[in-house]
Amino acid sequence: MSNKIPVGILAATGSVGQRFIMHLIDHPWFEIAALTGSDRTVGRPYGEGVNWLLDGDPPAEVANMIVQPTEPNLAPKVLFSALPTSDAREVEAKFAEAGYAVLTNASPYRMDPYVPLLIPEVNMDHTAMIPHQQKEYGWKGYIVANANCSTTSIVLPMKILHETYGLHSAVVTTMQAISGAGYPGVPSLDIMDNIIPYIGGEDGKLESEPRKLCGKYVDGKFEFADFKVSAQANRVPVIDGHMASVSVKFNQSASAEEVIALFQNWQLPDVLQNLPTMPEQVFIYRTEPDRPQPRKDRDSGNGLAWTVGGVRACPVNDVRFMSIAHNTLRGAASGSVLNAELLKVQGLLPG
Amino acid sequence: MSNKIPVGILAATGSVGQRFIMHLIDHPWFEIAALTGSDRTVGRPYGEGVNWLLDGDPPAEVANMIVQPTEPNLAPKVLFSALPTSDAREVEAKFAEAGYAVLTNASPYRMDPYVPLLIPEVNMDHTAMIPHQQKEYGWKGYIVANANCSTTSIVLPMKILHETYGLHSAVVTTMQAISGAGYPGVPSLDIMDNIIPYIGGEDGKLESEPRKLCGKYVDGKFEFADFKVSAQANRVPVIDGHMASVSVKFNQSASAEEVIALFQNWQLPDVLQNLPTMPEQVFIYRTEPDRPQPRKDRDSGNGLAWTVGGVRACPVNDVRFMSIAHNTLRGAASGSVLNAELLKVQGLLPG
Amino acid sequence: MSNKIPVGILAATGSVGQRFIMHLIDHPWFEIAALTGSDRTVGRPYGEGVNWLLDGDPPAEVANMIVQPTEPNLAPKVLFSALPTSDAREVEAKFAEAGYAVLTNASPYRMDPYVPLLIPEVNMDHTAMIPHQQKEYGWKGYIVANANCSTTSIVLPMKILHETYGLHSAVVTTMQAISGAGYPGVPSLDIMDNIIPYIGGEDGKLESEPRKLCGKYVDGKFEFADFKVSAQANRVPVIDGHMASVSVKFNQSASAEEVIALFQNWQLPDVLQNLPTMPEQVFIYRTEPDRPQPRKDRDSGNGLAWTVGGVRACPVNDVRFMSIAHNTLRGAASGSVLNAELLKVQGLLPG
Amino acid sequence: MSNKIPVGILAATGSVGQRFIMHLIDHPWFEIAALTGSDRTVGRPYGEGVNWLLDGDPPAEVANMIVQPTEPNLAPKVLFSALPTSDAREVEAKFAEAGYAVLTNASPYRMDPYVPLLIPEVNMDHTAMIPHQQKEYGWKGYIVANANCSTTSIVLPMKILHETYGLHSAVVTTMQAISGAGYPGVPSLDIMDNIIPYIGGEDGKLESEPRKLCGKYVDGKFEFADFKVSAQANRVPVIDGHMASVSVKFNQSASAEEVIALFQNWQLPDVLQNLPTMPEQVFIYRTEPDRPQPRKDRDSGNGLAWTVGGVRACPVNDVRFMSIAHNTLRGAASGSVLNAELLKVQGLLPG
Repeated sequence: MSNKIPVGILAATGSVGQRFIMHLIDHPWFEIAALTGSDRTVGRPYGEGVNWLLDGDPPAEVANMIVQPTEPNLAPKVLFSALPTSDAREVEAKFAEAGYAVLTNASPYRMDPYVPLLIPEVNMDHTAMIPHQQKEYGWKGYIVANANCSTTSIVLPMKILHETYGLHSAVVTTMQAISGAGYPGVPSLDIMDNIIPYIGGEDGKLESEPRKLCGKYVDGKFEFADFKVSAQANRVPVIDGHMASVSVKFNQSASAEEVIALFQNWQLPDVLQNLPTMPEQVFIYRTEPDRPQPRKDRDSGNGLAWTVGGVRACPVNDVRFMSIAHNTLRGAASGSVLNAELLKVQGLLPG
Repeated sequence: MSNKIPVGILAATGSVGQRFIMHLIDHPWFEIAALTGSDRTVGRPYGEGVNWLLDGDPPAEVANMIVQPTEPNLAPKVLFSALPTSDAREVEAKFAEAGYAVLTNASPYRMDPYVPLLIPEVNMDHTAMIPHQQKEYGWKGYIVANANCSTTSIVLPMKILHETYGLHSAVVTTMQAISGAGYPGVPSLDIMDNIIPYIGGEDGKLESEPRKLCGKYVDGKFEFADFKVSAQANRVPVIDGHMASVSVKFNQSASAEEVIALFQNWQLPDVLQNLPTMPEQVFIYRTEPDRPQPRKDRDSGNGLAWTVGGVRACPVNDVRFMSIAHNTLRGAASGSVLNAELLKVQGLLPG
Repeated sequence: MSNKIPVGILAATGSVGQRFIMHLIDHPWFEIAALTGSDRTVGRPYGEGVNWLLDGDPPAEVANMIVQPTEPNLAPKVLFSALPTSDAREVEAKFAEAGYAVLTNASPYRMDPYVPLLIPEVNMDHTAMIPHQQKEYGWKGYIVANANCSTTSIVLPMKILHETYGLHSAVVTTMQAISGAGYPGVPSLDIMDNIIPYIGGEDGKLESEPRKLCGKYVDGKFEFADFKVSAQANRVPVIDGHMASVSVKFNQSASAEEVIALFQNWQLPDVLQNLPTMPEQVFIYRTEPDRPQPRKDRDSGNGLAWTVGGVRACPVNDVRFMSIAHNTLRGAASGSVLNAELLKVQGLLPG
Repeated sequence: MSNKIPVGILAATGSVGQRFIMHLIDHPWFEIAALTGSDRTVGRPYGEGVNWLLDGDPPAEVANMIVQPTEPNLAPKVLFSALPTSDAREVEAKFAEAGYAVLTNASPYRMDPYVPLLIPEVNMDHTAMIPHQQKEYGWKGYIVANANCSTTSIVLPMKILHETYGLHSAVVTTMQAISGAGYPGVPSLDIMDNIIPYIGGEDGKLESEPRKLCGKYVDGKFEFADFKVSAQANRVPVIDGHMASVSVKFNQSASAEEVIALFQNWQLPDVLQNLPTMPEQVFIYRTEPDRPQPRKDRDSGNGLAWTVGGVRACPVNDVRFMSIAHNTLRGAASGSVLNAELLKVQGLLPG
């Protein structure tokens, strides 16, 4: 009866899958029509099989929905994938081949030369790659990936700086929330009263993904941005919200005052302002010296906004700044929902 | 009866003062002979007046010692100062003028052109400034300062790199423990499940103090090291231990492997090995990818060691590394005790 | 233009005052028309003077409102008081005398023999005391108090049990959030990796207030309930949400199963169901063995619901259970807003 | 060459096993002569196979010791068992049968009618059961168990009260540290900014073990103490140290003052004072209203002492008090070491 586009969630019982549910449950354009899960949960009502990790209970609309196997015979043609890294490459390809649009939060295809690594505010033109992807891989559907949650936390300010001054290099130190490790994730004995200066593979993602995201789509190819990133990722005793401390060097010099003005005056492209999930203000510059902070700023714009602050002259490079984004919202589920909204506006969603 | 050198502690009731007590209580060379405190505590037994913040109780040896006013008529000629910043400049000068050797943990004199900013492992020759200080200021005694606790956490590895390769620049992000803010210090409502990306004045100290510490004493002057430091200090929900993530550029290029070998082979100068408080190993390089960690490494060498790890090639500069030191031990009280031990060995303690 | 009842907030800049603002900002019946604050903030726009402790920023509607002195010449006749304990007795009496209805979150009048200690779900008939209060004290207005936040966390299940089985006694141990201590409140050095088994005066409030709340209003007098409460309050490293572990003995014996059924079938009185702030479900019984939990349950019903669980036979008394309520919402600001809504429905609000 | 008694540790690589190592490494009577571990670690040097969870590194003395399979052909006849619950029943019986003295930290035999549940300060005469155990089960060796860590935290004050006034009943609420759940144990996402009011099986242990511990050994039987315990266990965000809030009723009435005097004057039996691991003061009564606290008191007496405080009249029963003990030291490894020391003094150790 509904005019909404039916969508499915792959691996809906995990922590990212649960976030997908929360962001799709009252969506004006999309309607959850299928949930898949592990063997343990298949055939049972979602509300029974899930170990609900978010506050409160699973929404009534999905609690009685029967969990289906993750096989490419699902009714909805638009799928959000919360699959674990180990399964995602093979399973997502099967769905793409079978004609599904797969909006994935998993990592395997992020750096694939034919898969858009998409953040609408950063590189919405990258979706032009989709036909090439289909041709190259012989898929009727396609895959679009969102970025790693730590990359996400820094990439919009980097993009804004890069398109204005040309980014030469960035030295990044992140302080990342425990929810970024999923569930059960980080043992409390490891992280209480402590910091772990290592997250497997994260430094590499932070050093490569921004170059694809800030790069250009030209004739069936992604040309990576030519700046360099040095990153060191830390796990900190914070529940949600990845924060990064960044020092940047520009090709064209700019002062801290100019950068602050640039950040304060940045405007979201018109086409994105009407996406239903897009918050009123998606890029916030705070002038207080002690902001942004994870607990105080992670939920800005319903957890979809970037909050930036602390811009000042860097004694070594040009400028330092702090940036934060909510890792499980902006950096995961909600990011993919925004991607789907963009694809719909661009006329690229199947059905 | 004791042959030990009598010492006093200025502002012995605060959190740093309490640490002084713990590190002097069984000292083989020094003996606590005077404790001073605020008006509220003067004249009362130390154990009654103090709000003991460390584990357990105040040691029996000091619990019944009567707290004295902070006036320059104390019997011991060697004083450890835990005075707050607001009082330290004036009060410490009065004691130095009156002939006391003041080993201070306070900040006012750290960047003074005639006061040694001393960390024995880094710049033990800087004590040669003392006669010039006395002449310049007309003091019979003198002041020697220890470094800010955040500076301390990075400066020994910086010094080792600087004297080997010549340091060009360092980009530093710190994650600092709540104990660095004293007591009551950081409200729990501000820091639980959160990070505060700002500590007033700390960035500046991190950017200037290492240049004095790694500089040279030449003919009555300190020549600052000519590298640049960019620092951004964060308060994190960790009780003790300041950790820093550092990216360094050298004048003379070096690989990560060379730096690791340099760190692993570094030797403490002989004269320092016999200082009674000096731990067996004061500079530790850990090879595990996820070390150092505040909770696991802060107490190494009785809280006096630096623990360094995570050396790897930096895509932007030469090398990245992590460094940690215990902020209230190495970075405060114990640091001053080590300074006093060095001064004794150098024959510079009064009496 | 608005038909809403204008209201004021006394001491609007503190942490409780900020909560009042958030709960009145879009209220269908009330409209914030006055904010008072300390000398430091009087005459300045609220948004400038306040140290905003909640997430995000002060709402635009109040950010430019000029802070007024806390004097009884305010335009609105209905006032919510977030005054500190030290000022509340005298100041609130002045306002009551001058004809204001004072809905207070402060403690001085809670156990006053003529002031209703009001929680609508527990004792809405206690407002019948108001005319006696006015007569007794010669006030044109009146004072109605909400309960201490720790009392609040246990009192609705206690009331339900008391009216059904007759409560003989309750042995209570609370685990209370740091936000209950206000700001700056609990130093992080005291509470991280720790529990403080003492909150000044709290045990006594927990042992007396439930007896007034569960008592009867009879002919100008409050007859206290005759059960006994033994309470021991602990501060725990939790941001929001007071939890209590309770063992109760009844006058008329009842099994755990009967109590569970009682809790599951409890119905809110009709008159309260239509209060605009009242959540759909204000009393929740959870059957999972590991619930309620502060982080997962404190926000139930917009932070206004009680969540109860863990009912089982007690080897010593009759039954044990766990109860939780949000201390700064249900236990403070929102509680007073609900009280005001009840007073309006009862026709007892001035103007 | 050493005259020390050689001992082994079963399951030495887990978190309890690591604690055993730390407490035996410099023991004056015992010497670690064998370490067993899982298949993954057997045959490798301990230092390589272990995931060391304690601060610092594994001691040099054991780092190169080769991990052996957990089979009853170990050289030392005295074994400390850190086996997981699932294996302990069967494996420990095999060792006891083969003539080993098994000092176990595991739960299966704690409530066994022929196995002493031993805490020297509480029931050292219970070792008289050993010959009956051997006869009943046909074992050449024997098993002695230490108590659950949460039971341990309350049982010494309970014992002192019971033997003086006769305990009628106790209502207990515990706040237990995350280390009690082992490693990886409690996920940080579950416990940060939260409390979990449920630890599987713990309430039952708290309600039964104290009755065995405070009971009497009579003619080959343990007569349980006839008091009742009601317990509710909570997991709290504290690293180490289990704290309990207790309300007790006596058979013979006593005031808070009398109980405080009793606690302050309690004396350790002479025979126990000379056990090498026994701290100078094993039972500490603190008079400050806000003590004991886990972080400040858990390490008292090298983590072996009970710290009690907060004695006051209970409005429902006779007296309330707080008690704390270090769960992984007093409540686990060190407890078993003390048991072994007692057995040696009693002449009950093999070899």
